[in-house]
Amino acid sequence: MSSSKKLVELFYDVVSPYSWLAFEVLCRYRNVWNIDLKLRPAFLGGIMQGSGNKPPAMVPNKGMYMTTDLTRLAQYFSVPLVQPADPFEAMFKKGSLAAMRFVMAVAEKEKDGDVKVEKVSRELWRRIWSVDQDITQPASLSEAGLKAGLSSSEIEELLAMAKSQPIKDKLKSVTQEALDRGAFGFPMTVCHVNGKAEMFFGSDRFELMAHCIGEKWVGPQPYKPTAKM
Amino acid sequence: MSSSKKLVELFYDVVSPYSWLAFEVLCRYRNVWNIDLKLRPAFLGGIMQGSGNKPPAMVPNKGMYMTTDLTRLAQYFSVPLVQPADPFEAMFKKGSLAAMRFVMAVAEKEKDGDVKVEKVSRELWRRIWSVDQDITQPASLSEAGLKAGLSSSEIEELLAMAKSQPIKDKLKSVTQEALDRGAFGFPMTVCHVNGKAEMFFGSDRFELMAHCIGEKWVGPQPYKPTAKM
Repeated sequence: MSSSKKLVELFYDVVSPYSWLAFEVLCRYRNVWNIDLKLRPAFLGGIMQGSGNKPPAMVPNKGMYMTTDLTRLAQYFSVPLVQPADPFEAMFKKGSLAAMRFVMAVAEKEKDGDVKVEKVSRELWRRIWSVDQDITQPASLSEAGLKAGLSSSEIEELLAMAKSQPIKDKLKSVTQEALDRGAFGFPMTVCHVNGKAEMFFGSDRFELMAHCIGEKWVGPQPYKPTAKM
Repeated sequence: MSSSKKLVELFYDVVSPYSWLAFEVLCRYRNVWNIDLKLRPAFLGGIMQGSGNKPPAMVPNKGMYMTTDLTRLAQYFSVPLVQPADPFEAMFKKGSLAAMRFVMAVAEKEKDGDVKVEKVSRELWRRIWSVDQDITQPASLSEAGLKAGLSSSEIEELLAMAKSQPIKDKLKSVTQEALDRGAFGFPMTVCHVNGKAEMFFGSDRFELMAHCIGEKWVGPQPYKPTAKM
């Protein structure tokens, strides 16, 4: 990895649909911009509690807008995002704690690189935000892991790790790091430019982000993705 | 005006800095896109109360982000936006009711077109969001009106109109119309495309908006503005 590459960190949680958009865009641009993308799985529930923020859908007009906005953006970003039948149940009642501990276990095991973190995260998003499937049960996490190309034995180990104190603590500490950097929701992208950390919230600052890191934004699909989504 | 032009309505309040960004961008693009831009002055206080939304700065991390975000966007959008010394005082204690009634009076008097509405709105934004000046007192509104090219007698008439019941009622009814269309904050842009109204919140959906109306987004400065800002 060339040292000239700018470090870009993406803090996210698979419970967040806007995070999925940012994740896919940055995964595409990691091959276009001269950046070193670092995936930072964290826990959105902890961010909302720690920052005192409230989910947008608590305001009815905001909730309705979000549905329209996500549908339009999903099409424009070419991300197969479909709202679950009961978003409140999926996002708040069931939540993502088990899922993000699982992703954190994948991240901890995969010391160099984040190929597996990327694949597992995408499969979890696909479950909750595309085909309306559970992401809380071990069997659900296993299925996502298998689709992401992990072996059964690897998954078994990861499920055990996900319940361990070190992984719980690690998820807490990354979430706290995000809060300390100013998070009040996800996605949060931190670009390291000339020794300064520039934070961007949401999936609607890519054009500005490109400007800040000296790159060019050419829309959410810099090329037609060849990878099967 | 050709009937092929798509109607684009911008609901805004001069108390809102993000509205200023959207206003300048759309005023630039009205000469680039095949649109008929209609300025819809309204009252943000009524939108927040009616929708049950809370100002972003109530969450400390969100407030801090907003300051950084606005500074970066102002530079990128080339809008001379500077945060007032005491944003809370300017935005919430003093507010914009008198200012928006004045703008509404300008709109009501200027039956065809909105050249004056545009100029007066820009002068009011410049006061509160660039040079940290009052926008609540008649003398302040007068100054803004004079800078916008209105005559003293015209301003006198507008100040009287602004206090009248019909103007108060009109501001209320446009604000209610915005709420009915799903507003929970400003700016809100409504694009009329093939008989359907597409609503966009904020000043970060222009690329998507362009896509929806069949136009091209080439950044916040489609040309170097020749008008003195």
